[in-house]
Amino acid sequence: MGKKITKRSEDYSIWYNDIVKEAELAEHSAVKGCMVIKPYGFALWENIQTELNLRFKETGHQNAYFPLFVPKSFLSKEAAHVEGFAKECAVVTHYRLKSSADGKEVVVDPEAKLEEELIVRPTSETIIWNTYKNWIQSYRDLPLLINQWANIVRWEMRTRLFLRTTEFLWQEGHTAHASKQEAIDESKLILDLYADFAENFLAIPVHKGLKSINERFAGAIDTYCIEALMQDGKSLQAGTSHFLGQNFAKAFDVKFQTKEGKQELVWATSWGVSTRLIGGLIMTHSDDLGLVLPPSIAPIKVVIVPIYKSEDERVVVNDVAERIVNELKALKISAKYDQDDNKKPGWKFAEYELKGIPLRIGIGPKDVKNNSVELFRRDTLAKELVSADNIGEYISKLLPEIQQNIFNKALKFREDNTHYANTYDELKSLIDSNAGFIWANWDGTTETELKIKEETKATIRFIPLDEEKIEGKCIYSAKPAKHKVVFAKAY
Amino acid sequence: MGKKITKRSEDYSIWYNDIVKEAELAEHSAVKGCMVIKPYGFALWENIQTELNLRFKETGHQNAYFPLFVPKSFLSKEAAHVEGFAKECAVVTHYRLKSSADGKEVVVDPEAKLEEELIVRPTSETIIWNTYKNWIQSYRDLPLLINQWANIVRWEMRTRLFLRTTEFLWQEGHTAHASKQEAIDESKLILDLYADFAENFLAIPVHKGLKSINERFAGAIDTYCIEALMQDGKSLQAGTSHFLGQNFAKAFDVKFQTKEGKQELVWATSWGVSTRLIGGLIMTHSDDLGLVLPPSIAPIKVVIVPIYKSEDERVVVNDVAERIVNELKALKISAKYDQDDNKKPGWKFAEYELKGIPLRIGIGPKDVKNNSVELFRRDTLAKELVSADNIGEYISKLLPEIQQNIFNKALKFREDNTHYANTYDELKSLIDSNAGFIWANWDGTTETELKIKEETKATIRFIPLDEEKIEGKCIYSAKPAKHKVVFAKAY
Repeated sequence: MGKKITKRSEDYSIWYNDIVKEAELAEHSAVKGCMVIKPYGFALWENIQTELNLRFKETGHQNAYFPLFVPKSFLSKEAAHVEGFAKECAVVTHYRLKSSADGKEVVVDPEAKLEEELIVRPTSETIIWNTYKNWIQSYRDLPLLINQWANIVRWEMRTRLFLRTTEFLWQEGHTAHASKQEAIDESKLILDLYADFAENFLAIPVHKGLKSINERFAGAIDTYCIEALMQDGKSLQAGTSHFLGQNFAKAFDVKFQTKEGKQELVWATSWGVSTRLIGGLIMTHSDDLGLVLPPSIAPIKVVIVPIYKSEDERVVVNDVAERIVNELKALKISAKYDQDDNKKPGWKFAEYELKGIPLRIGIGPKDVKNNSVELFRRDTLAKELVSADNIGEYISKLLPEIQQNIFNKALKFREDNTHYANTYDELKSLIDSNAGFIWANWDGTTETELKIKEETKATIRFIPLDEEKIEGKCIYSAKPAKHKVVFAKAY
Repeated sequence: MGKKITKRSEDYSIWYNDIVKEAELAEHSAVKGCMVIKPYGFALWENIQTELNLRFKETGHQNAYFPLFVPKSFLSKEAAHVEGFAKECAVVTHYRLKSSADGKEVVVDPEAKLEEELIVRPTSETIIWNTYKNWIQSYRDLPLLINQWANIVRWEMRTRLFLRTTEFLWQEGHTAHASKQEAIDESKLILDLYADFAENFLAIPVHKGLKSINERFAGAIDTYCIEALMQDGKSLQAGTSHFLGQNFAKAFDVKFQTKEGKQELVWATSWGVSTRLIGGLIMTHSDDLGLVLPPSIAPIKVVIVPIYKSEDERVVVNDVAERIVNELKALKISAKYDQDDNKKPGWKFAEYELKGIPLRIGIGPKDVKNNSVELFRRDTLAKELVSADNIGEYISKLLPEIQQNIFNKALKFREDNTHYANTYDELKSLIDSNAGFIWANWDGTTETELKIKEETKATIRFIPLDEEKIEGKCIYSAKPAKHKVVFAKAY
């Protein structure tokens, strides 16, 4: 059918676009910078939502929903926040259209100008903390552990499907606490939750770390992150969890009465992951044949392709295929039985490889005779003949094995592409060759960080959390090193 | 705690607001017309989503996501559609803010004016059919059965929480078909799905019907609806399913090649229900004590309140309570065990009545001695002592009974408040006294419909689907009647 995936070695960026397009995950829309998430891509997002909702609820969080719009004046209330977010955003200035004089089109009605412009939320700290002001009076109202699933708009000039789009989908947690320590603990709990989710559900190995001041969320005291290495040696920030201190409580005057009867400002966190995770999923696991999906997130875990020439053959093959479908259904393993007569088995094989279905079962008349089926693993591309008896049980043991193998492969890639630079020249040459994660000593100053960024395009991806005392000198300034950090180019 | 619900007989409208507020379902936000859906209200929406997703997927539909913004010119492409939707909407005209001259606030950057304004979607037919143009080439691409969960903005001057808000949440299905009949069948399939969902999940009795031309969706050939009667005698349109004919295919030039090789325009449907359903749920079942929730949608189905005075009593009561919680958990009945020491049992009783929890179990030391518990039904307000043995099994049989009873009560209310008007005077007096659904003969003209609306404020809620030949005259014009329809005031 002419579906073609450019090789990674040829052009990594086109390879990525090809996969998003040919696996029918998403496409650009008529609205600049906004994407259409197609059913197969959205099924991935739904599985992410289901799994995260489970984990959020287990840890005491509840979902709620806050307005799409933020009054312009709200953004100005937190100084650092407005600096980071007020710049590129969608501004609603009017609330009505009317017919043009010639009646041929509609035009903005100048009479319907808003007194105060509304911003389409680029993140919801301000509108939420303005609401929390009324929800929090006493220590008894704390902690407040709330999450929302929402669409977000940040005007982007250069967009890439899933990785950077003007509109994207995400979840944003916003919690309120009575003490600093409790808020810090919350932001770390979520960091751990994200890391566990990334590694055990998406099979993406991540480093947990702290962002440098320069890379911090606008309005945060500390930004924790999970950071993953893509196959082109670039880093992807896959999730962030912010300790916001009392910044938003100050900006929106949110105080509570302590047990002792004192009035104190509330402590805050916020945290989020977005549809960008799907971009990370693609870039971590996929190959030149197309998408590779870890079984946990795969909307279809097993596809069954019947192979036959005559109607008689079709009937005997169908018998076995249906038995297997029912067996898998009983085990709650989502399976697709592709009975489409208009497509040849070869076409189907290529299509399901492209779509990253973890396992493919091929059944022909000879297999029926031998009471066997051909099992194809998308992760290893290996085929094996297995007995048709208890195939469900066999597969339910195989799927976690595949999940683990996909994770191990990505972990090995990261290990193979992690380096240590002892000098600035080493760092530069490693970055130039897209070598991956580069550990190096840094003096801890924004000045040095920005110089290195300017000269190499690499940024500090994270400062490790469980840092030991650092010896030695900064590779750039030769001043005493404060941290050993990871440098990389990033998405 | 001073929570007070105004009686329905005193002021129905304030009663509704009191329930929304005191049961902590939603509240007005700082953005005019937009609501904050609080965790307990959002849990209702999540349960609606889960149940509808199940039903949509069972009938072959897939979820996807389309952009929040619609280019202004798209709205003008379907003449009737723009008439209905372009009027009151949020218009994005700029994509950047900048610091004001004095640096104290942010202002719209006049340099960042969009070439074409973007409309925040009031519904997504236009952006979706513009996308479908690229997805549909051949009859093999049809049917296309897609749904999206999204936020919608329609600028409303007079808003009511859940019932009418500027931003609301909904699902919108958009399907494409090769034939007229298939599209009509789809719109009726969804109508049946909505009716079944309303009656068997929300316990809201609904009439299925067709809208008059005047009440039709802007751009539809036919609008089917489910219509429910509220306790104040007003009608609520609870869901609509539209047969769109080829209107949007024409507007966006969406053609397909038939099996025979001809080029034909695609047939369409769209359909939706929204957070308005939560308003309907409240107004159908609740009473002067607060919310009444059918067990199917109740986030918490059973609450357990321990009653004790001493620590010794607490321990024995706790033993039984924990056993019951585990029993319910094993049966997947969501239960809350309220161990909060700061609140008295009496306060808790009132609180959970207000929140509409279907069943409350009270356990005191005497109950433990007698191996019984006190079971309170929110729907009947009846208490009974039941054996603590096999309480889980007892409750799992009782919950469907409660669900049925809540439905029956609403159905009886509708029957008691359905009338037949033989003359226009009868209609007027019935409408004046908020008598509910009024059946009457109508000549089928928009002229008569609008006159009646003007004079009585009642509208035609629906034309029945399985209509027999009508005899007699229109109650207004005395011309031969074309339909027997239901008149009512509506939300």
